[in-house]
Amino acid sequence: MVHDHKDSIQRLKTVEGHIRGIQRMLDEDQYCIDVIRQIQAVQSALNKISTQILDGHLNTCLLTVAQGDDPAERQRVLNEITEVFETANRV
Amino acid sequence: MVHDHKDSIQRLKTVEGHIRGIQRMLDEDQYCIDVIRQIQAVQSALNKISTQILDGHLNTCLLTVAQGDDPAERQRVLNEITEVFETANRV
Amino acid sequence: MVHDHKDSIQRLKTVEGHIRGIQRMLDEDQYCIDVIRQIQAVQSALNKISTQILDGHLNTCLLTVAQGDDPAERQRVLNEITEVFETANRV
Amino acid sequence: MVHDHKDSIQRLKTVEGHIRGIQRMLDEDQYCIDVIRQIQAVQSALNKISTQILDGHLNTCLLTVAQGDDPAERQRVLNEITEVFETANRV
Repeated sequence: MVHDHKDSIQRLKTVEGHIRGIQRMLDEDQYCIDVIRQIQAVQSALNKISTQILDGHLNTCLLTVAQGDDPAERQRVLNEITEVFETANRV
Repeated sequence: MVHDHKDSIQRLKTVEGHIRGIQRMLDEDQYCIDVIRQIQAVQSALNKISTQILDGHLNTCLLTVAQGDDPAERQRVLNEITEVFETANRV
Repeated sequence: MVHDHKDSIQRLKTVEGHIRGIQRMLDEDQYCIDVIRQIQAVQSALNKISTQILDGHLNTCLLTVAQGDDPAERQRVLNEITEVFETANRV
Repeated sequence: MVHDHKDSIQRLKTVEGHIRGIQRMLDEDQYCIDVIRQIQAVQSALNKISTQILDGHLNTCLLTVAQGDDPAERQRVLNEITEVFETANRV
């Protein structure tokens, strides 16, 4: 199953730079609340990225197993989606 | 598409009683942090319920459209799942 | 410490009605994704309510102990705020 | 206001490495659900870091302004805490 993850990888590079910027903020003892706001901005960016990856997954892997004839494999893939949804509610 | 939602309905009745209990706590001017903890317990219960409903949805509606021959309908159902996943990350 | 919780109680009554509406939706076997969206709307309303209660808490209890002379009590109140913040990130 | 942010900076360095690992996973077209789980692990680590920073903030800046004699400044600091709490519920 080959996806085009270029956009997600690019967004993760941006997040990586953002994380380094937050380290600098702490190093320079910048105002705590501003640091927390930047961490929350990173969390929001990560939400977008994981949603993008889930979207690709549903349109490829999920469709393939849903249309295939392996009920156990199908169940596994559906359970995984339920599981990441439950975790999404908690992180 | 008929699901058995008995368990989810039962859990929502419990949540409803919990919400009434929190109103009483506020009415009696109980300690704010205890009230917030109870609200967070309700939110955790609601996460479980929406996960349970999503699980039923994936195993019925989603499988049906994935195996059906209406690409537009299939896309709509997949997009909805992506969308509730994105919102789950934010509430 | 007496707060005016009228607005929060009113919002919780609205949430309670909302929860009963969701039970009805499940009972009538309405579309799962619509049910999940309603649950997410309730979670968003609960976020507003707990934020409102925390705001009242900071402006009363917290200020009182911060200005008081009981370091142990002060530490307890600060730890509670950190703790509900951590849980807020997870529910 | 000087804090010791060494531990938070160290944790952010770990997160940074984690983010680079996730880019590699996407580059090697690893299984989408495993990628999403790693993103969720990063989000959980970020929650711990922002909680740690808030804890430092409450024990320093907040205590100082709460005990000080500038009501406007006090209000500003309390409002900021309420605001990051509200956002924590949403990211």
